[in-house]
Amino acid sequence: MASGSASSRPSPEHIHSALNAHQQTAALKSAIELDIFTAIDEGNGTAEELARRVKASTRGVRILCDYMTIQGFLRKEHGRYELTPDATLFLSRRSPNYMGSIAEFLTNQRHFENLAKLTEAVRRGGTAGEKGGNREPDDALWVSFARSMAPLTVPAALFIADLVEAQEGRPCKVLDIAAGHGMYGITIAKQNPKAHVTAVDWPAVLEVARENAEKAGVADRYATRAGSAFETELGEAYDLVLLTNIFHHFDKGACVQLMRRVHQALKLEGQAITLEFVPNEDRVSPPVEAGFSLLMLVGTDAGDAYTFAEYEAMFASAGFAKTSLHRMTTMPQEVLVSEK
Amino acid sequence: MASGSASSRPSPEHIHSALNAHQQTAALKSAIELDIFTAIDEGNGTAEELARRVKASTRGVRILCDYMTIQGFLRKEHGRYELTPDATLFLSRRSPNYMGSIAEFLTNQRHFENLAKLTEAVRRGGTAGEKGGNREPDDALWVSFARSMAPLTVPAALFIADLVEAQEGRPCKVLDIAAGHGMYGITIAKQNPKAHVTAVDWPAVLEVARENAEKAGVADRYATRAGSAFETELGEAYDLVLLTNIFHHFDKGACVQLMRRVHQALKLEGQAITLEFVPNEDRVSPPVEAGFSLLMLVGTDAGDAYTFAEYEAMFASAGFAKTSLHRMTTMPQEVLVSEK
Repeated sequence: MASGSASSRPSPEHIHSALNAHQQTAALKSAIELDIFTAIDEGNGTAEELARRVKASTRGVRILCDYMTIQGFLRKEHGRYELTPDATLFLSRRSPNYMGSIAEFLTNQRHFENLAKLTEAVRRGGTAGEKGGNREPDDALWVSFARSMAPLTVPAALFIADLVEAQEGRPCKVLDIAAGHGMYGITIAKQNPKAHVTAVDWPAVLEVARENAEKAGVADRYATRAGSAFETELGEAYDLVLLTNIFHHFDKGACVQLMRRVHQALKLEGQAITLEFVPNEDRVSPPVEAGFSLLMLVGTDAGDAYTFAEYEAMFASAGFAKTSLHRMTTMPQEVLVSEK
Repeated sequence: MASGSASSRPSPEHIHSALNAHQQTAALKSAIELDIFTAIDEGNGTAEELARRVKASTRGVRILCDYMTIQGFLRKEHGRYELTPDATLFLSRRSPNYMGSIAEFLTNQRHFENLAKLTEAVRRGGTAGEKGGNREPDDALWVSFARSMAPLTVPAALFIADLVEAQEGRPCKVLDIAAGHGMYGITIAKQNPKAHVTAVDWPAVLEVARENAEKAGVADRYATRAGSAFETELGEAYDLVLLTNIFHHFDKGACVQLMRRVHQALKLEGQAITLEFVPNEDRVSPPVEAGFSLLMLVGTDAGDAYTFAEYEAMFASAGFAKTSLHRMTTMPQEVLVSEK
């Protein structure tokens, strides 16, 4: 670099690119907000046509669409923009698989505020924000989660339904803890007409789950219990307890406490099904699972992406006989099955 | 995706990753702020050692260093972190090529605020912030630029000095417009003992340039003119006028206006040297140059990353005889030479 010539030498490019990476987030968020992808799918191809359709300036649309092209969400040919296959399937509202809504939760203002305090979070070892406990009733963040993240759950929900052999159609009593949108339990109920699901979450979040159960046609087999997973009466004799994306918010003590409650609520041959970001023991792979810890550092008091060995030990200490790990190929998350 | 099985199908991974990309920026910014890289270079290898050295929590340091490992700035072996070659050269303060300071400007709060208003900027076709004119005296953003970005200029400054044959040592009168840190003019003055440089910028910015000229031992051949490049008396009979990273802030009319002033200030065989982000005519390649437009959309009233054809036309209309394009292999920027 000091010589300014040989291009094979180390380069500041990667550093520069990481420091600018936040632009990618802002750009995709805005393209989704402006519904640019749907407008292109409808046949609007030039910046002028798109600007008219989304009620924005031609200059702004041109720069945003060029950026989306650079990022690989669009293609540009002779001044006309086209959707890439990913954008067609996931970012156009004409697609049944539309998932633009996930931008609402993933780019929630809370995440930006927490990340802006990362240095302070590293110093103190936990969030520098105010809501690190994650036990506050009806936190708007979890309503946003429930309202927006359902589309991203499809592969994992199907994977779990397969794993628990929902299609076999045996009578099955399911408890869905911190259900959020409720899609994991609802997917089981859709596949198994003899499944009955009880969802636990805060009241405002349960409204979303109930709406989704109605849309899925399983509302008559869908019950709710409002309150904290750590305090609410959970009921008993469940075949399955679903624990999707909950443990990462808490320290190990709280996780074990919740696992004990789950153990009590299960019937003798019941199973706890955990969906989580489970990094390898090196904690730096796979990238998404391992990298998830950063969000827990900035957003929680003591949450983490726990390794399989850590989960195994926690479930064992809560009384479970055996825990096994199931990696998905379709999503960067893992499923744990813990037997009572 | 709906089937949740075949992994060769389109995947939401790229969308998910772009919406989370801002975490990369926050993480590298914090690692630089905490001076983690220097601490590792000093021999602190474990999270415990590093936490002690940088006065932070072990948990926070572990999560941040794991994230830096995932991002490719560190390696992790048996629980010890090591620097990658890029990090050794550019992110440890023990290196003469340290450039951690660029985080200060690249992640300046102003950029975050502007990007947070991207959707509104697309609607109106220019910044939704308050400082889009870029003509305000002593804007703190440009002092931050001058103080922090000098390390990134080295390859381009050497490229320009080569291009103008500074080492030939001919008498040379140089005008450096919107000089900032002043490194482009200073590099010419270091290579050519007969070069005299006049730097134009706002007073608070010129203080930084003057400090750098003193450090480089060329202060006796370094003059300054405080004020706007559009209004200040520029002087005359210059051999070279440097226009580094200035045009992209303005619309074409303002660019041509400035080019005309430069044309007047040059002697008969003088050259205007422009350093800029110059995308190809398709405006979507190369990625860094083309992507730079987004920052101009959110941060300026009407700035842009102009193509070579646009620069050629603007310089011609300002009276220049000929403009040629020189691509650097070491940096994602281009140099234009315009002959009077």
